[in-house]
Amino acid sequence: MSADQLGSLAIVGIGPGRSDWCLPDVAERIASATDLVGYARYLDLVSIETAARRHRSGNRVEANRSALALDLAADGGRVVVVSSGDPGVFAMASAVVEQLDRWPDRWCGVRFEVLPGITAAQALASRVGAPLGHDFCVISLSDVLKPWELIERRLEAAAGADFVIALYNPASRHRPWQFGRAVELLAGHRDSATPVIVGRDVGRPGEHISVLTLGDLLDAEIDMRTVIIVGSSTTRILPDRPLGASVYTPRSYGLGADPNPTVPSNHATA
Amino acid sequence: MSADQLGSLAIVGIGPGRSDWCLPDVAERIASATDLVGYARYLDLVSIETAARRHRSGNRVEANRSALALDLAADGGRVVVVSSGDPGVFAMASAVVEQLDRWPDRWCGVRFEVLPGITAAQALASRVGAPLGHDFCVISLSDVLKPWELIERRLEAAAGADFVIALYNPASRHRPWQFGRAVELLAGHRDSATPVIVGRDVGRPGEHISVLTLGDLLDAEIDMRTVIIVGSSTTRILPDRPLGASVYTPRSYGLGADPNPTVPSNHATA
Repeated sequence: MSADQLGSLAIVGIGPGRSDWCLPDVAERIASATDLVGYARYLDLVSIETAARRHRSGNRVEANRSALALDLAADGGRVVVVSSGDPGVFAMASAVVEQLDRWPDRWCGVRFEVLPGITAAQALASRVGAPLGHDFCVISLSDVLKPWELIERRLEAAAGADFVIALYNPASRHRPWQFGRAVELLAGHRDSATPVIVGRDVGRPGEHISVLTLGDLLDAEIDMRTVIIVGSSTTRILPDRPLGASVYTPRSYGLGADPNPTVPSNHATA
Repeated sequence: MSADQLGSLAIVGIGPGRSDWCLPDVAERIASATDLVGYARYLDLVSIETAARRHRSGNRVEANRSALALDLAADGGRVVVVSSGDPGVFAMASAVVEQLDRWPDRWCGVRFEVLPGITAAQALASRVGAPLGHDFCVISLSDVLKPWELIERRLEAAAGADFVIALYNPASRHRPWQFGRAVELLAGHRDSATPVIVGRDVGRPGEHISVLTLGDLLDAEIDMRTVIIVGSSTTRILPDRPLGASVYTPRSYGLGADPNPTVPSNHATA
């Protein structure tokens, strides 16, 4: 096959699921694709009109799914690999590039592109205010692809240095005790009154968001569709404001006198 | 003024600047706004057609800008505060919620909402492959609003626990030595061959992206429009692939035998 017959592969993220939170560039790629490749549940979230064939696969077959997408592109397709959220954050972009790394002579000349999307932690943060307004970490609690010891080391480091911490994949049927252990580690560094936000199916039908404290986190319902943001020592809850403005992490930290104090605007108010 | 005359305030992020990387929901708010409030340089990036008045302000007047936006909304406006990137990540969402926190009895009844956007680290990551494919941290190197000692502590913690690290606000005219010190700290934990990605004006005219190593980072041109991603010990460079597939952090980490090996697809290839 000559090089000009080779196709293209775009790895895209549709965001949390709402069509108005999906980038126009991503929507355009999906609309004009010949083939969509993805985990079946994510392909079902695609509401954009497209004549593309849908290649649905199960979870945990990322290597095979990546190779299929690359093969379809090498055959001349305009192939789109669909992740939810951002494909670059615990999603398909890394899995596909890993195939290119392992097979250096294969799929040469396929045009390859990753397009970003809104990841779950951003979507959850936006729903409650600005908990990620200061330095933060993003950690997957799944020990399927990394040793649990590494996860503990990262939780300790992040909690010890007072980062806000976003937790992905907090629990599943196959990982029953890990979440409790993670909360125990965090509680060793943070006050039990530390604000915590728990979001399930953020940006999707059935969205459920709670603002609670670290002391109550073990009582929350947690599963693979949940993302959690644990505040730092400076994160604050505003009890008398609506959900959209209920939690934030201030931009300034421990400087004593505020270097940029409130200046009421000059605009006349009622 | 009665409650039903109160307006609304949306804090939005337009992403890196490209109109096709701005959420449809954000574009719609800007198009239908009565007032846009923001740092002048970000308002200039707004290419969406709108009849809104533009309230341009300088950098570092976030408190005053926030109060102005809230006042305009309290007067009945459909006000949109415009950030670049994601308004929840080192941007205006935290500044506005802080005003609501400081003045608990003011601006009650204004409808308040934060909409997410693509932040610079995501945009940069997507340009080169998948460097954020595993656990990562996001740290601002600006010590204008936090003590430099905290930044050092966080860099040490993140590097010590082998996180991928995204660095925002790496340098400015007023902070001449901090970047060098940060690189020195990271070099104490990471090999000099560690992959590093440097992006300037990502997603904007004049975009410039380089893939280099930690050992060469001090020679790179760095300023406030630059964002940097420093790989972990597992991040890899693919020298023979184009820029879009040149760096990734594998999904699995230090488990010995790959739990999910490459399975060539069943699809026939040329």
